Amino acid sequence: MIDLALNTATTRRQWGLREAVEGCKRHGLSSIVPWRDQVLELGLETSAQLLRNSGLGVTGYCRGGMFPANNEAGRRDAIEENRRVIDEAFAIGSPLVVLVCGGLPEGSKDLSGAREMVIDGIHSIMDHARSANIKLAIEPLHPMQAADRSCINTLAQANEICDLLEPSGSSTLGIAMDVYHVWWDPDLTRQLHRAGASRLIGFHLCDWLVSTRHLVTDRGMMGDGIIDLESIALTMSEAGFKGIPEVEIFSEYWWSQPADEVLHTAKERAYSVLNKLSR
Amino acid sequence: MIDLALNTATTRRQWGLREAVEGCKRHGLSSIVPWRDQVLELGLETSAQLLRNSGLGVTGYCRGGMFPANNEAGRRDAIEENRRVIDEAFAIGSPLVVLVCGGLPEGSKDLSGAREMVIDGIHSIMDHARSANIKLAIEPLHPMQAADRSCINTLAQANEICDLLEPSGSSTLGIAMDVYHVWWDPDLTRQLHRAGASRLIGFHLCDWLVSTRHLVTDRGMMGDGIIDLESIALTMSEAGFKGIPEVEIFSEYWWSQPADEVLHTAKERAYSVLNKLSR
Repeated sequence: MIDLALNTATTRRQWGLREAVEGCKRHGLSSIVPWRDQVLELGLETSAQLLRNSGLGVTGYCRGGMFPANNEAGRRDAIEENRRVIDEAFAIGSPLVVLVCGGLPEGSKDLSGAREMVIDGIHSIMDHARSANIKLAIEPLHPMQAADRSCINTLAQANEICDLLEPSGSSTLGIAMDVYHVWWDPDLTRQLHRAGASRLIGFHLCDWLVSTRHLVTDRGMMGDGIIDLESIALTMSEAGFKGIPEVEIFSEYWWSQPADEVLHTAKERAYSVLNKLSR
Repeated sequence: MIDLALNTATTRRQWGLREAVEGCKRHGLSSIVPWRDQVLELGLETSAQLLRNSGLGVTGYCRGGMFPANNEAGRRDAIEENRRVIDEAFAIGSPLVVLVCGGLPEGSKDLSGAREMVIDGIHSIMDHARSANIKLAIEPLHPMQAADRSCINTLAQANEICDLLEPSGSSTLGIAMDVYHVWWDPDLTRQLHRAGASRLIGFHLCDWLVSTRHLVTDRGMMGDGIIDLESIALTMSEAGFKGIPEVEIFSEYWWSQPADEVLHTAKERAYSVLNKLSR
């Protein structure tokens, strides 16, 4: 058994939620992070029961967010949708919802405006999250996804949102740190320490390939790229992260491989990155 | 005549330097920024004479940089190469060399180390640049190019290098600001003002397409993407930029179009972005 979660995006083309649960058990992973589409496809009740009976830890739920919209109604819909996502996270026993915050609304070039909408959106769902005892993990996305997926692109921004909305210290808000999105950031170490134990509630593993052929679906398996994963894992540990790291690989290549091989490789590679940490 | 430069990368598949010079004159652009390969292909002397006789301003030369290397000899070679680039810039009458600083050396994951090599490299060529009266324009590249093209990825980093190497104020060092690389940066406005008139010596125009299909060669024509170019141009102006903006579009699409049409479109689009500024 290894303290590692499978983010089901990694095997989404090969496996539904049921197969992913079986895969995690077969390969000795402790935990799973389901995606919403797979949970709803199977049905929320059935998924919740499946996960409860699996013996796996559910360490996250993907995803909420996507707050910016062209009009008031769109923004309200997004907030309602996020409340439903929180309820689903509660139902499946996840401690948190990962927030992919959203990019520019269609036709807009107002990045600052979109960022304000994200802050408003997160603010609007905090009470609901708090009452369900679900944390909101703000995930900064790589700047190359600023227009279409998230206008929150650095750990500094995520920290600033936490400071703004929970000035007396984090309880409902936190940060999901995905190495793919932040490895390049010259401010990485400082911002991880600034976030600290209370905010660092997600740690996503994959790798950056040289050359990268697609902006979303060409992530690498740990060790196949150029991210200094050991050093980042050490910094995460020093900054106070105590959770279960998860493997999340969006990759046309890995989606075309047998999922058992993907999981086997991911586990070996994650182990070689993480085994140097005193956990 | 419009105060605009053609960066010859924009038409590099259709035109050599001679055709690009003729194109700029035909379309009424004031200036040109040649790439090194085209200058050397034609011959340095011939290129210098062509440019001198063209009546065009030469507002930049692309490019120096690429400092990080796996060993001492490689780093020394890069520095020698950069000195030659400075000499060429002098020969063709360019006031500056654009620095694409370089990414990780082959096989390395040490991003901080690469960044130190860049600082050492720039430091090593400053005297040579100063004696030729050539400025060095540090160009931060988009974080998606951190591994393979430049580990200098934010204006903050460029400003810090300038602070470090010219603590009493910029004279040889400056910054080339390409909207493509920095439009997403939440710190953009502050860092442009921090750079100010003395450091802002390059302003590259293009646009960010949604969706972007390639990390290097899918840039958009101004107006076809989501960058708020008018707002950024205004900030550049307020921050003190007084140079000639240049169009630099790496694009499989635009490379497949007739170059005269590319130049015509670029001129119109640039005009509509820039004509609101009091220049």
